Amino acid sequence: MRTSIASVCLSGGLVEKIHACAEAGFDGIEIMDADLIAASESPEEIRALCDRLGLRIDMFQPFRDVEGVDDDAFADTLRRAEAKFRIMKRLGTDLMLVCSNVGTATIDDDEVAARQLGELADRAAVHGIRLAYEALAWGRYVNDYRRTWEIVRRADRPNLGICLDSFHILSLGHDPAAIETIPAEKIFFLQLADAPALDMDVLSWSRHHRLFPGEGDFDLVDFMTHVVRAGYSGPWSLEVFNDTFRQTETGRTAAHAHRSLVWLADRTAAANDWSDGRLGDAPITQKLDFVEVAGADLADVDELLAQLGFTFEGRHRSKPVRLWSAGDARVILNEQVRDSRPRLSGLGLQVTDAAAAVDRALALGSPRIFRRTYEGEEDLRGVASPDGTQVFWSSSPDGSSWRGEFGGGTAAPEGLQGEIDHINLAYPWQEFDEAVLFLSSAVALRADPPADVPGPRGLIRSQVMRTPDGAVRVPINLAPPTAPTPDRHIAVRTDDIFTAARRARARGLEHLRIPANYYDDLQARFGLDDEMLTALRELDLLYDRDAAGEFIHFYTRTIGEVFFEVVERRGDYDGYGGANAPIRLAAQRDRRR
Amino acid sequence: MRTSIASVCLSGGLVEKIHACAEAGFDGIEIMDADLIAASESPEEIRALCDRLGLRIDMFQPFRDVEGVDDDAFADTLRRAEAKFRIMKRLGTDLMLVCSNVGTATIDDDEVAARQLGELADRAAVHGIRLAYEALAWGRYVNDYRRTWEIVRRADRPNLGICLDSFHILSLGHDPAAIETIPAEKIFFLQLADAPALDMDVLSWSRHHRLFPGEGDFDLVDFMTHVVRAGYSGPWSLEVFNDTFRQTETGRTAAHAHRSLVWLADRTAAANDWSDGRLGDAPITQKLDFVEVAGADLADVDELLAQLGFTFEGRHRSKPVRLWSAGDARVILNEQVRDSRPRLSGLGLQVTDAAAAVDRALALGSPRIFRRTYEGEEDLRGVASPDGTQVFWSSSPDGSSWRGEFGGGTAAPEGLQGEIDHINLAYPWQEFDEAVLFLSSAVALRADPPADVPGPRGLIRSQVMRTPDGAVRVPINLAPPTAPTPDRHIAVRTDDIFTAARRARARGLEHLRIPANYYDDLQARFGLDDEMLTALRELDLLYDRDAAGEFIHFYTRTIGEVFFEVVERRGDYDGYGGANAPIRLAAQRDRRR
Repeated sequence: MRTSIASVCLSGGLVEKIHACAEAGFDGIEIMDADLIAASESPEEIRALCDRLGLRIDMFQPFRDVEGVDDDAFADTLRRAEAKFRIMKRLGTDLMLVCSNVGTATIDDDEVAARQLGELADRAAVHGIRLAYEALAWGRYVNDYRRTWEIVRRADRPNLGICLDSFHILSLGHDPAAIETIPAEKIFFLQLADAPALDMDVLSWSRHHRLFPGEGDFDLVDFMTHVVRAGYSGPWSLEVFNDTFRQTETGRTAAHAHRSLVWLADRTAAANDWSDGRLGDAPITQKLDFVEVAGADLADVDELLAQLGFTFEGRHRSKPVRLWSAGDARVILNEQVRDSRPRLSGLGLQVTDAAAAVDRALALGSPRIFRRTYEGEEDLRGVASPDGTQVFWSSSPDGSSWRGEFGGGTAAPEGLQGEIDHINLAYPWQEFDEAVLFLSSAVALRADPPADVPGPRGLIRSQVMRTPDGAVRVPINLAPPTAPTPDRHIAVRTDDIFTAARRARARGLEHLRIPANYYDDLQARFGLDDEMLTALRELDLLYDRDAAGEFIHFYTRTIGEVFFEVVERRGDYDGYGGANAPIRLAAQRDRRR
Repeated sequence: MRTSIASVCLSGGLVEKIHACAEAGFDGIEIMDADLIAASESPEEIRALCDRLGLRIDMFQPFRDVEGVDDDAFADTLRRAEAKFRIMKRLGTDLMLVCSNVGTATIDDDEVAARQLGELADRAAVHGIRLAYEALAWGRYVNDYRRTWEIVRRADRPNLGICLDSFHILSLGHDPAAIETIPAEKIFFLQLADAPALDMDVLSWSRHHRLFPGEGDFDLVDFMTHVVRAGYSGPWSLEVFNDTFRQTETGRTAAHAHRSLVWLADRTAAANDWSDGRLGDAPITQKLDFVEVAGADLADVDELLAQLGFTFEGRHRSKPVRLWSAGDARVILNEQVRDSRPRLSGLGLQVTDAAAAVDRALALGSPRIFRRTYEGEEDLRGVASPDGTQVFWSSSPDGSSWRGEFGGGTAAPEGLQGEIDHINLAYPWQEFDEAVLFLSSAVALRADPPADVPGPRGLIRSQVMRTPDGAVRVPINLAPPTAPTPDRHIAVRTDDIFTAARRARARGLEHLRIPANYYDDLQARFGLDDEMLTALRELDLLYDRDAAGEFIHFYTRTIGEVFFEVVERRGDYDGYGGANAPIRLAAQRDRRR
């Protein structure tokens, strides 16, 4: 598979975009006319730069308002086209995207469209240029790829073919199966975009809400299956307009974009049992091996874990790193960083094949993490996620291969027994989709449908990433643009939350205080008996219930950018107490003031 | 008119919201259940605070999922309601909002709904509580105010009435005329929201895109005309959920909200020739009197104006302020501020009745500006807009009342002759709607439809605010969340842009450099002749053309946060060269690097 991307997907100037595409590993680029026009560099300079970086200019785009017009308008179109053909020669590219007419068409007739496109193709042929005709979903008369193919077939010129765009086809619900009936040599180009299922006008949907493959609701695996079966062997190119990507750092978006194509190729190959593009099976993720908190000074976290009833397992034999555990829940405190407030910095996953998991993540473009390792120590391998959070994989059960590196601890009396229930990560809004793609591709977690939670400074989007069996659960939050990114937290599950809360309080733990009004509302909503209500109120416990079961939980104070939660699940309750999130957010906000 | 607002419209904690509402001049507040639940303060404390601030608690809201349910569910509803009635007694409010059932209804029968609402009303009556039943646009069975009225009529309880909400009625296109058929004493409450015309599902539209009255596309004047004619005399209350407002500073949003109600009352009274709520006729705005640039050191702006061919009219006799003019275009440079980069800080408008204009702006809640004035000097009166930009009004033609305060200038040889064509203001995204409302209400400008312009860091929304005759034009821009706010600029119109550009260049002006690729594209688009194209290219002039005429313009470099543009309009061209904005933005960005 050759990869390509339209320059409009990235922010910044054209030269900056070209460098970012090459760095991210793309084979080619589509040059957007408007990007070239706004650039100080001449077409010759752009061409030379792409040559030097090994980036092919796959297409020049778009050329608009060609077909279905009267003769005067068409004469002007040919004049416009000649000027653009000259630019293309200077750029050194031979493929031009021609969009179906949106603005100027007055004649709804395939014969006229075929004649005019044919004539344009003949003019292009003089310059050795080929035309790829694409149906825009909001084309005035032509908005269906089956119709562009019919028009191209009628025009019957060797240098006139079609361009397929997944957004335009899938947004209108057109069946992509007919792609297989188009001769491969007439599919000149392929553009890919995903999108969330939104009920809005298709032009705004396209302009503002396209996503990279794997982040939306389109079935792109099915789409690509038809394209590959048709025999198409050209570049897989991304054309994604999105208010977020345009505002993100150029190189980071390019890396994100490239990962989405590698992922789509893998998913498509896996679905069809093809070897080409396949990354290999993802190993099975069994559980969370550990969670890591990093910071320059983690003494307050030590104190908090002790109050929660964690057992201190000891210090690492060669690094300023400590290990705490509560049954199967392991928390590593890492003081190898300077000038940093305590934060949730990484996680370890126990998988069936650690080497394969790391290799997959590397193939998906994630940078490898360097960890100093001495003789006799486990060489824990991992990668950095786009925001820097580290992910490690190990195949030895319950940290058995690396726990021996820690020593000198003492068991806590009446210690907390449990396991990690979930870890909660949070991102500024422009990093959210990127995080979802990383966690679903490189970490092989499944994305549940998102939900919105009201916070005191705006709605917070929440989405749960998890293994199918729920052994690993990572709810992630998206902060609104002008709000601070929420703090991350680690939730430990226990079988007896009342005892855990009482003991923690006896050890001096500061619970997050829950307002009395909350308990009045609990009574109104659930009709809890007085004894239960009193117990919850006294221990600042939060409560939720649904048809499957109950959820009782409490939070600690926040240290730096991390806090802890202790939860008990009763029955088959499978949520996270989402209804209580506004209460928690308001209480945390009140504490900060 | 009594004003009220739902606490959900504002960001922050409940106490913060209550203070902001009182400060902004609201008479009352609707307390949202969720805001109270998350508050540390008891209902008694909230009640006492509202008492002290003179804010009436007009309503407690919402109570959900009442009608159309089976007997078991209804028994639970009564239990829930009793708990909330107790909270309402503690809050000291007697009106509860009951929303039409969205989630739990299974019986689509007015008789059942009337019976259940009637029974709930009887329970409420014991506590002296009244119920306002509201049709949500996405109610399971009941989503039309005409149906809520039918159900309330059948239930026939003195303490059961309806709540009208403009969003739910107008978003579904329901005719508000039937409001006049409802007895006034059965309309217990009124909630107002505006919204942009969007083609999306009504729940998302409501949750994310409501606007304050006057900012969207709903005909709220017509809506309120029916409500007033029905005899409703209760509060006009705002219920606006919007991703932006929730993230804005609480007090500022409250002031913004209150202005929207005053404005709606004025528009409604004006449309009906009612005196109640009327602010008086807006005086006619004739032209821009002056534009003001403020900064700690404006020497660079002096130099730039001299290079453009402005005439130095002299220094102010008592303040560190200078006046420059180019024909009818007057620019005041004000060095009375400390530590501030040069920026477009204010504007003066020439109107038929300056005193009336200022009084209107003050009545709309704008703070008055203090200007030190000495004997014999014009007492220029004005107000601050929400972002601090100052607006002054004067009735004397061409600054004749204040220009005499400046002296000691010298006319520029071959000076620029022209007038202010437009001034361009820009706002961070969360301040945009607020600016539109201020400019349309307090400054009496009309809002043209918005457009999106692609910039190198995302789409920039542009909207033109103007007098109907175009004498005053203020295009305003909205920056995307993570992009810096665009710089503001002042555009001067001349009759001969080529001469103006040549002379300015001869005086040493640095034009904003336009890339050569732009001129290749101009040729492709417009087929300009070589002579014209060469002249444009040599002088870094930008060009646009439409059916009405032509537009030629150039930009200066940016000083601090302000730059200048010189434009020539040919024929009846009425735009601003919007197609050239991406070129300008890219060129400005390249300069900054």
